[in-house]
Amino acid sequence: SAQATKPVPIAVAYGDGIGPSIMEATLRILEAAKVPIAPERIEIGEKVYLSGVTSGMSPDAWEVLRRTRVFLKAPITTPQGGGYKSLNVTTRKTLGLYANVRPCRSFHPFVQSRHPGMDVTIIRENEEDTYGGIEHQQTPEVTQCLKLISRPGSERIVRYAFDYAERAGRRRVTCMVKDNIMKITDGLFRKCFEEEAARHPNIEADVMIIDIGTARIADMPGTFDVVVLPNLYGDIVSDVVAQLTGSVGIAGSANIGDDFAMFEAIHGSAPDIAGKGIANPSALIQGSLQMLVHLGFADHANLIQNAWLRTLEDGIITGDLVDSRGRRGDATTDLFANSVIQRLGDEP
Amino acid sequence: SAQATKPVPIAVAYGDGIGPSIMEATLRILEAAKVPIAPERIEIGEKVYLSGVTSGMSPDAWEVLRRTRVFLKAPITTPQGGGYKSLNVTTRKTLGLYANVRPCRSFHPFVQSRHPGMDVTIIRENEEDTYGGIEHQQTPEVTQCLKLISRPGSERIVRYAFDYAERAGRRRVTCMVKDNIMKITDGLFRKCFEEEAARHPNIEADVMIIDIGTARIADMPGTFDVVVLPNLYGDIVSDVVAQLTGSVGIAGSANIGDDFAMFEAIHGSAPDIAGKGIANPSALIQGSLQMLVHLGFADHANLIQNAWLRTLEDGIITGDLVDSRGRRGDATTDLFANSVIQRLGDEP
Ligand SMILES: CC(C)[C@H](C(=O)O)[C@@H](O)C(=O)O
Ligand SMILES: CC(C)[C@H](C(=O)O)[C@@H](O)C(=O)O
Repeated sequence: SAQATKPVPIAVAYGDGIGPSIMEATLRILEAAKVPIAPERIEIGEKVYLSGVTSGMSPDAWEVLRRTRVFLKAPITTPQGGGYKSLNVTTRKTLGLYANVRPCRSFHPFVQSRHPGMDVTIIRENEEDTYGGIEHQQTPEVTQCLKLISRPGSERIVRYAFDYAERAGRRRVTCMVKDNIMKITDGLFRKCFEEEAARHPNIEADVMIIDIGTARIADMPGTFDVVVLPNLYGDIVSDVVAQLTGSVGIAGSANIGDDFAMFEAIHGSAPDIAGKGIANPSALIQGSLQMLVHLGFADHANLIQNAWLRTLEDGIITGDLVDSRGRRGDATTDLFANSVIQRLGDEP
Repeated sequence: SAQATKPVPIAVAYGDGIGPSIMEATLRILEAAKVPIAPERIEIGEKVYLSGVTSGMSPDAWEVLRRTRVFLKAPITTPQGGGYKSLNVTTRKTLGLYANVRPCRSFHPFVQSRHPGMDVTIIRENEEDTYGGIEHQQTPEVTQCLKLISRPGSERIVRYAFDYAERAGRRRVTCMVKDNIMKITDGLFRKCFEEEAARHPNIEADVMIIDIGTARIADMPGTFDVVVLPNLYGDIVSDVVAQLTGSVGIAGSANIGDDFAMFEAIHGSAPDIAGKGIANPSALIQGSLQMLVHLGFADHANLIQNAWLRTLEDGIITGDLVDSRGRRGDATTDLFANSVIQRLGDEP
């Protein structure tokens, strides 16, 4: 297709642990697919924290981000103790990344899953709730934390969820809250959901209480479609749903705001297997495909997704995955990436 | 066994929806098993709410509870709107029922479950967290809710969890929190857990972050043993784990305090099937067995549990359950209760 020929600058961070290895693999695939991007490397994570920057991201890095506005990020390691702030949370709030989009699809039989047909997208509010860091210890014995739910914040995310459903041809959006207990905060989120639902008569909408909602989605994820939740519930439910696809190692995540966007793997930096060359780059690859769609390079995204699927179909999987016959993968990170590259352009 | 001959008074509430029917069935079984209790009926729930009592429990009922100190409760219906307070939450706080104990065991193949071997007990803190009802709307656009975690509250519940594990011969206690974000509140809960764990060197102890913890327990409940959590996480995780046994219709729940105790089914009042005579009394039966153990009538509890298991083994199940061959049950509430009664005294 006749895409822009001038490469689009994006910020990339190699992160910690398995980060550098899966980022290298991902960028190699994007390059082989001739995606017109110009990655600019920034430093974040452990080294930056330990150099005394409590946010984990150097001022230079912020500059690059402000300019490129699109950020592909590998997982990082946050050092223990020492008042370090979560880089994820700081980035989400600083850049106004209000929507966290986590597609969770099963690739059974290539990746074993008890829920073959599942294809759920979790849309998680990404700035509010108990993620404000407003906590205090009033006496040595009593601590408190403030949960914030605002109308603009809730309206923004439920609108995003319904627009996403319209765009992606989805049929149903489910909201989960605990408004039988948190009548004011979760009640506001539900109200905003119901108001937005009324504007999309062609999309089914339903509300579940988070306890039974999580239980149902854990038991029968195949019966859900798009799910929209406040921050903390979304954190929990998205991990549950990703895990049920067969592995948290294949789910990407997009953090979307009006001016900025960040794309990542949903898993962490897995220090235990770092440096062994066996990490699965799939979740970061999936995150990068969400980025390509965001940049308007959907054709490139499809090309790579086909090659990635073909790789799985040919039984080439890394050691974190098991196929439907119970065979554990043994592909290295490099072999896996090379196999995807070889299959670029294959028929879907 | 030579139990006390003078019957122990207990408060019982028949509740709403399917409540009266499953309570009747449960009490009939307890009576047939010659459990030395003297039930005193109290009124709670919908009618009481609608008569203008916002707590859903009449002052008379509180009197009976204060005297009997043991309460067997059927599910109730809370009318929509109107500032009604959750009866469960009020009771837990008024009576100081700090520990919510939810054993979740699979009875596969008699009740179909994807996780045949699972046997998890969830121990949920029952008074603190965001359950205080401290919420406000500061502007029309901004709402807030206060989460409370105290040292005495956390110490009490983690001590209960380890004592339970010792008593029940359990090997491992897992704590789940989100202390990478809520460092002060969830951090305090974790600290209390680790302090208590150090006093029980013979019991394995581990801490997981609630997102990945819920994902793991949803995927592999068979690998967990005892799990202790703050109130809201416990609410969510206990529903997940109960559901994975095959049905929320077979899990009982004990709410334990220093002076009082309340026993119930974990499911709700199911108004849609009320009056049809088809409700499953099993969860309330299980709750009542927790009550018998609490009262020191473990022999009676075993007698009934054997008869209940025998009933399932003979394929007598209600319509909410499916066995491992996919056959849906068709026993009525009465037939099920009668079948349990017939099997009292059968060999285990
Ligand atoms: C690392 C942590 C702060 C983060 C979160 O809670 O949002 C992570 O669990 C996630 O889901 O991206
Ligand atoms: C009904 C509701 C208030 C209650 C809770 O949240 O505790 C219920 O979900 C439970 O788990 O007992």
